[in-house]
Amino acid sequence: MTLPVIAAVAAPTRDDLERWAEADREARPRRLARLRERMATEQVDGYFGVRRENTRYLTGFVLAEGEEKVAGESGRFFVSADEVVVLADSRYRVQAEEECPEARVEAVYGNLASRWPELLASLRPVSANGSNGSARSDSSAGPRARRIAVEAAFVSHGAWLRLAEAEPRVELVPVEGWVEELRAIKEPDEIERIHAACGVADAALARLLPSIRPGVTEAELALQLEWEMRTNGAEALAFDVACLSGPRAALPHGSPGARQVTPGEVLLFDFGAQVAGYRSDMTRTLFVGEPTPRDAAIYELVASAQQAALEALSRAVASGDRPTNRSIDSTARDLIVAAGHDEHFGHGLGHGIGLATHEAPALGRTAPEAPLPAPTVFSVEPGVYLDRETGVRIEDLVLFDPDARRFERLTSFPREITVVG
Amino acid sequence: MTLPVIAAVAAPTRDDLERWAEADREARPRRLARLRERMATEQVDGYFGVRRENTRYLTGFVLAEGEEKVAGESGRFFVSADEVVVLADSRYRVQAEEECPEARVEAVYGNLASRWPELLASLRPVSANGSNGSARSDSSAGPRARRIAVEAAFVSHGAWLRLAEAEPRVELVPVEGWVEELRAIKEPDEIERIHAACGVADAALARLLPSIRPGVTEAELALQLEWEMRTNGAEALAFDVACLSGPRAALPHGSPGARQVTPGEVLLFDFGAQVAGYRSDMTRTLFVGEPTPRDAAIYELVASAQQAALEALSRAVASGDRPTNRSIDSTARDLIVAAGHDEHFGHGLGHGIGLATHEAPALGRTAPEAPLPAPTVFSVEPGVYLDRETGVRIEDLVLFDPDARRFERLTSFPREITVVG
Repeated sequence: MTLPVIAAVAAPTRDDLERWAEADREARPRRLARLRERMATEQVDGYFGVRRENTRYLTGFVLAEGEEKVAGESGRFFVSADEVVVLADSRYRVQAEEECPEARVEAVYGNLASRWPELLASLRPVSANGSNGSARSDSSAGPRARRIAVEAAFVSHGAWLRLAEAEPRVELVPVEGWVEELRAIKEPDEIERIHAACGVADAALARLLPSIRPGVTEAELALQLEWEMRTNGAEALAFDVACLSGPRAALPHGSPGARQVTPGEVLLFDFGAQVAGYRSDMTRTLFVGEPTPRDAAIYELVASAQQAALEALSRAVASGDRPTNRSIDSTARDLIVAAGHDEHFGHGLGHGIGLATHEAPALGRTAPEAPLPAPTVFSVEPGVYLDRETGVRIEDLVLFDPDARRFERLTSFPREITVVG
Repeated sequence: MTLPVIAAVAAPTRDDLERWAEADREARPRRLARLRERMATEQVDGYFGVRRENTRYLTGFVLAEGEEKVAGESGRFFVSADEVVVLADSRYRVQAEEECPEARVEAVYGNLASRWPELLASLRPVSANGSNGSARSDSSAGPRARRIAVEAAFVSHGAWLRLAEAEPRVELVPVEGWVEELRAIKEPDEIERIHAACGVADAALARLLPSIRPGVTEAELALQLEWEMRTNGAEALAFDVACLSGPRAALPHGSPGARQVTPGEVLLFDFGAQVAGYRSDMTRTLFVGEPTPRDAAIYELVASAQQAALEALSRAVASGDRPTNRSIDSTARDLIVAAGHDEHFGHGLGHGIGLATHEAPALGRTAPEAPLPAPTVFSVEPGVYLDRETGVRIEDLVLFDPDARRFERLTSFPREITVVG
């Protein structure tokens, strides 16, 4: 068995967590100012947010992944000229007051539509005053909000209909991506947290290797890898661990099951950690015993495709260029297509990552073409999948920052062929 | 320390899992027939579903909790007169074909709007033919779908706008709760799975008790409780474990942290397991050392409120009655209000549970009043929370089946005051 050597990565300390929390507190006014500039440009008076990650980014209020499904309207928020208003039902009120000292916390109890007119009336419009709200005005006397931007990709159509009916004098403007565009550009403390999450994941896989032997099941290895992350610095997983053996590796999003690790097959791990809200994402395809010629050839092809994309990004950074999301996808994809595997690489090359596992930018054939944002962090993850036979994917996260001439791989587990078992 | 004795509950076996999978396969045609009756009554030609749980219930395609966020349009589905159509991108195609042998699997790649007209054109309408579709007709020659029901509580407003624009000749009808109403009425094999999940959770808490001692942190206990469940029959958690000590127990949805277990305080656990897709949910408030008079009095009040609701439900079942969701909430709440704690019980008395942790019926003051569905499973979970001081909640799941004269508690961990540490 070839045991990769990983540089020891220290798990985040309590000091780290406090420093990052402080960085967020300092960053939030800058983030809000950028959103208010956009609001002024687009002539909306207020912004109504519903996406969990956007709530955390702009207000500091934390809902765990999936918690939004049972939190009712808690965590939804308004941004006006001079205020942030966070909604919280009785279960979340104390938490909201503690996490959002700068915000006004308003109680809602599943009755958002009935309170909607009053909440809108309490907002001081951005567009009537430019983007720099000063002291809060007496809302009953001031100008009324007439156009409210609403996160259309995250508010349900049913909720939209109820809100529109509740206050027909206010126009709801469907907007998508306004906060996501801000989030795509990463601050230094955000990059540090993603890097820390990568370190937790790197170390966990290295510790798992001795347990990988014929007969152990996918589900057992997935659970152990999760345990390694969560007891060594991860506050949560970024997503459920994928551990897929042999033909099941051809399921790019399959779930680990009772299938046993078998010599002569691949073993694919796709996993990530979460540290202080920020995620990592990495895929490694290991070999149980000596690789078959077919699997080794596919591995080398995927590795070369990934390497080509990384080199193109590195050259762009060296020259201060910003290639497009589609061009980087093509750089990797062309090699896979040339090898006759066009149909076996069905997904995009990569995706941004941060508070969400998948966020902007999207690298792929179908995404609208645009220069990469910067500085940003995204995955580079080509794959080749032969249905019901085998699959190989290699995924790393990279920091792309041409202005600072920085291009770094944030995941550090070796990418060479690794034989286990 | 008072160690409750729990009857040993066998973790689900592979035979159980196969039996439940078979039961689902047999149940799906009946579930679909009920949906098609509703579609015919409401004169819609097709049904477009997007909610993860509804996909599993009607088609068999499984996405893990939260996986829908990265699955694109995979798992979205249509029901027409004679077909189920499941959408899957390349990552999920093989899985969809395996899990949904009765369905037509259609490939989408983030391009649903562009394929929408063609997909609608391929559906044979329900309303033109009554609810009993026979063999699939040649869709190009048959009648066209004119009205499509869309799950408005789960499709985003942004997606709605794109779909409406893509095929303006087809009316999109926003519907909510059609499948959820079916899911509220539980089949025997669904009840069995919820009960199995309760057994996993009961046993896990019993095994955790010796580890609860002053100095251990909330986060450590939460992780150990999770581990106990996931290595003894739970395929996943129903939701993140809440473990909250002392004043933090007043946060009904707080997250476990670095706070240490301290003598003289309460320790609240809210947790659940998932078995073959179905969830449990239980809350126990334990005492670390002897309870203070204040905490003991609150505990007895909450326990008596829960007992009053359970007895009212038991009487209803004995007489074959179906009380309303609001009346049962009031039965418990009146006792808490009479004790002067009206403001300290801010949430509803309970919620249905099944494939989702929170589903119909909702028991509370704000839910529209309606007789309870039956047979059904829901939580009974009164609580009293003193901000920044202490909190007590006691939560059990019950099976309510007046037609069969069955009323059973599915969670069996003792509800008496339990002193640990």
